[in-house]
Amino acid sequence: MGRLICVGLGPGDPDLMSVKAHRLVSGARHVAFFRKKGRMGQARRIVDGMLLPEAVEYPMDYPVTTEIPFTDPEYNRLLSAFYDGWAERLAALCVMQDVIVLCEGDPFFYGSFMHLYTRLKDRIAVEVVPGITGMSGCWTATGLPVTWGDDVLTVAMATLPEEDLTARIGQTDALVVMKIGRNLPKLARALQAAGKYDDAWLVTHGTMANQTVQKLSEISGEVPYFSIVVVHGQGRRP
Amino acid sequence: MGRLICVGLGPGDPDLMSVKAHRLVSGARHVAFFRKKGRMGQARRIVDGMLLPEAVEYPMDYPVTTEIPFTDPEYNRLLSAFYDGWAERLAALCVMQDVIVLCEGDPFFYGSFMHLYTRLKDRIAVEVVPGITGMSGCWTATGLPVTWGDDVLTVAMATLPEEDLTARIGQTDALVVMKIGRNLPKLARALQAAGKYDDAWLVTHGTMANQTVQKLSEISGEVPYFSIVVVHGQGRRP
Repeated sequence: MGRLICVGLGPGDPDLMSVKAHRLVSGARHVAFFRKKGRMGQARRIVDGMLLPEAVEYPMDYPVTTEIPFTDPEYNRLLSAFYDGWAERLAALCVMQDVIVLCEGDPFFYGSFMHLYTRLKDRIAVEVVPGITGMSGCWTATGLPVTWGDDVLTVAMATLPEEDLTARIGQTDALVVMKIGRNLPKLARALQAAGKYDDAWLVTHGTMANQTVQKLSEISGEVPYFSIVVVHGQGRRP
Repeated sequence: MGRLICVGLGPGDPDLMSVKAHRLVSGARHVAFFRKKGRMGQARRIVDGMLLPEAVEYPMDYPVTTEIPFTDPEYNRLLSAFYDGWAERLAALCVMQDVIVLCEGDPFFYGSFMHLYTRLKDRIAVEVVPGITGMSGCWTATGLPVTWGDDVLTVAMATLPEEDLTARIGQTDALVVMKIGRNLPKLARALQAAGKYDDAWLVTHGTMANQTVQKLSEISGEVPYFSIVVVHGQGRRP
């Protein structure tokens, strides 16, 4: 009986994979990864050039990403069937050998793997290797520490309602907001209402060759869904 | 002119250091690290057996840790002088060569290095390598994903006043609390007041050989300052 091993790949730079992740990925014979249909997928891109020539790849194409709202029951039905199906396929594969699942960032931190994990953890041997989060890569890219002393850090998604965002931003010392994309105008209004717009940074493609780091107030136009907004804490500093 | 490079070592298991961190540490000729006086120090312990025989070590002994409250002006004065002194010494060393500073976890996330960083970043070349946070290691150790869907994650220190902790815990979906130690009774009361005591886990020495993972309600007696309490989010799960 093999194991299903989900490997956190970190924020994007392959050099920031853990020693363990690197060893598991470079020795893997069966490699599964999520991707948007028709794309290479960020997780697969991070390990490009690192896989054995004989590795068998299992791209898991999301049936839907942001095309329909996640409040639509159809969204839930499609994704639920998708995870059920892949849970069965991966469980069957693991009868014979280890299977590595690639995951950007840290798998238990907003990662899609958790939906396979909950379906499989009581049926087969599942292991999770933590990784450097995307947000760590992004706040390091800003060149400023994110939390000092007793600062409170809040991590929130830009998909939340505007008034929730405004309240959360007003209450925290340091802030990370993920899932930006077309939610940027709403997030910008919430940051303005909370008096933190001028302190906010936007990082895209953190730690990768095409990384950008800008004050949010300098942004115009569209930004990727997988951008991160950071407001740094201002706590105790001897 | 050399560089000062702060390397995030991750949560404790050396196998969870990044490939980059591992390469920098194993090739380093000058290695500085913080520690409590008279102790080996957690950062130094992680890299034990990994340093070159000719590496020169610079232990930076904190003049004070938890012996006097951080609200005492003397605390600030002692630490400020300590960071000033080491900033000068490291800047002088960097004239001749690269110097590696070891840091547990992720340096810009509550790490002591930031106090050297702010003193030196405009004077010499300083680089920071992000690492896997201690909290990632700890929530992975619980075997349960920490955040789902649009969950809000709050990271707070147990050193905060009890009423602040209670309010923060009541408002969030997922929770991480650090700096536990003798603040545990206060934190336990705050978790009870917010109705989350029975959902809280305590992890000590996450990812290390002596790791412990327990429901907080099963804990009696003292716990280390560097323990982490986790309450998992319960968000959307197709």
